[in-house]
Amino acid sequence: MNPEPEHSTDGPSPAELSPARARALFRRGLRVPTSGYSAGYAQANLISLPRDLAFDFLLFAQRNPKACPVLDVTEPGEVSASVFDGDLRTDLPAYRVYRDGVFVEERTDVTDLWRDDLVSFLIGCSFTFETPLLEAGVPVRHIETGSNVAMYRTNRACRPAGRLSGPLVVSMRPIPAGQVADAVRITSRYPAVHGAPVHVGDPAALGITDLDRPDYGDPVEVREGEVPVFWACGVTPQAAVTASAPEFAIGHAPGHMAVTDVRDTVYQVP
Amino acid sequence: MNPEPEHSTDGPSPAELSPARARALFRRGLRVPTSGYSAGYAQANLISLPRDLAFDFLLFAQRNPKACPVLDVTEPGEVSASVFDGDLRTDLPAYRVYRDGVFVEERTDVTDLWRDDLVSFLIGCSFTFETPLLEAGVPVRHIETGSNVAMYRTNRACRPAGRLSGPLVVSMRPIPAGQVADAVRITSRYPAVHGAPVHVGDPAALGITDLDRPDYGDPVEVREGEVPVFWACGVTPQAAVTASAPEFAIGHAPGHMAVTDVRDTVYQVP
Repeated sequence: MNPEPEHSTDGPSPAELSPARARALFRRGLRVPTSGYSAGYAQANLISLPRDLAFDFLLFAQRNPKACPVLDVTEPGEVSASVFDGDLRTDLPAYRVYRDGVFVEERTDVTDLWRDDLVSFLIGCSFTFETPLLEAGVPVRHIETGSNVAMYRTNRACRPAGRLSGPLVVSMRPIPAGQVADAVRITSRYPAVHGAPVHVGDPAALGITDLDRPDYGDPVEVREGEVPVFWACGVTPQAAVTASAPEFAIGHAPGHMAVTDVRDTVYQVP
Repeated sequence: MNPEPEHSTDGPSPAELSPARARALFRRGLRVPTSGYSAGYAQANLISLPRDLAFDFLLFAQRNPKACPVLDVTEPGEVSASVFDGDLRTDLPAYRVYRDGVFVEERTDVTDLWRDDLVSFLIGCSFTFETPLLEAGVPVRHIETGSNVAMYRTNRACRPAGRLSGPLVVSMRPIPAGQVADAVRITSRYPAVHGAPVHVGDPAALGITDLDRPDYGDPVEVREGEVPVFWACGVTPQAAVTASAPEFAIGHAPGHMAVTDVRDTVYQVP
C-alpha cells in the first residue's frame, strides 16, 4: 500500500520524477546510478558512522570542505533528515557496508544492519550541478551514455581529524576545451556540492595512471578536444573509512545517491 | 625576555600592529576590545569545551552557520591553532569562565584553568569585515568612539544540537540609511565571518526592547538618519553555554577577540 503511482515506460522520465517518487522506486529495488534523476533537486552522499566517531568525522568534514560539504547530520539512530524526507535505510538505490574498514557487501536495503548509535551525514554531491551544466550547454558524458560517473582515489591526502585520514577522491567529467571555463564558472557557484574543480587536465599529477580504470563507477570516454576535469567527490569519506578502519560504517554505493527534497538553487551562491 | 618590542605611544597604531605584536600586548595584560586592531587580519571568537561536548558543539555550529562559522578546531588540550600562532590561554585580551552554565569570572589569563580535554573552536568574527567597510567609506561607530561593539541576545532560537541550545546573539552597527545597501553588499562577501546582516532596522522584531542596554559590550549611539543593522555574532556559543549549562567552558570576553594570522581576504568570496 504505497500512495506513489508505479513508474512505467509511459510515465515521467528519470529527470522529471519528484524526489519522493524517485525514492519510492529505489525503495522497491531499482538499482541505478542517480545522475540525471529528479532534475533540479540536490543529491547527497551518505556516510553513517557510530556516534563514537561522529566528532572525528564532522571535524574531518570541516577540515576538508571541498570533498565533504555537510548538508545535514542526523541524531543518533535517526533514519530521515531535514533535507531528506525518506528512509535512509531503504531509499537509496544501493549501499556499501564496511566492517573494520573492509568493504564487505553492497546491498539495496540496510534496515537489518541499522544501529541506534549510527549518526548519518549527508554530504553534497556534484550530480547537483549537472542540471545547470546541461542548461548551459556543457555536455555531461555519463548522462549521455547512461553510465555511472568515473571516480578516482588520488595521491592527495585529506587533512586528518582524530582517527580519520585518507586520500581525496575525485569525480571526472570530460569537458570540451572551449567549455572548461564555463564548467568552472558554473560549478563554482555551488560550493555546497563540491564547487569548482580541484584539478583540470593532467591526471598523472593526481596520481591517476589510467583514466580507463576508475576506482569507483564506470570508465567514461575522453574524446579528442576534451579535457578531463576533476571535482572533489563525496566518496572521500568512504576512502577514509577504508584507510582508517573504524569498526562499522555504511555508505551509499558510489553514484547511487540520496535524492534530497532541496532544490539545487538553495545551494547556489551569487 | 620577549623579542617583541614594547608598544608605546610613538609606535604603530592598533590598526598597524601585526597579529603577533597585538597578541604580545594582550599577553602582557593589555585589556581592550580588539575592534580596529591589526587591520586586514581576521579576528575570531573562542569557545573551549570539554571533548565530551565537542561533537554537540560542532553540530550546533554546522546547524547555525551564520552565527557560528568555524575557522579552526584544535585537538584536545592544544593551546594554538593553525590560524592562530599564539597561546589561546594568554593571548586574548580577556576571557570568560563558565561553570555549569554560570559565568563565574572574567580574567586575562586562563592558563591555570586549562584542561587536557578542552577542544577549542575559533569562530569567525564580524570585526574582520570592518576594514573593508571603512575602506568603502561606511562608518563604524564603535571604532570612531573607541568603545566595544553592542551585542544583544535575540528572541530567535538557534537550531539545537545534542545538549546545546540557545538564542541567536547579534552585533549591531548604526549605518546611514544611504549606505545600508553598501554594508549588505560588502559584508555578504565574508560568509566565514558572519556575512550579510540577519536583520536591518526594527530591533523589537528581534526581541530587543532597548538598544541602549546591550547584553554584551557597550551601548552605541544610533543617530538621526541611521538604521541599526544586525549581524549574527560569535558570542552565540556563550549564550548556548548559559542556556545549556555544560559543566565547564571558557570563552573570550565579548569584543576581546583572538587576532589571527590569516588575512581577511582569505575569507572573501567573489
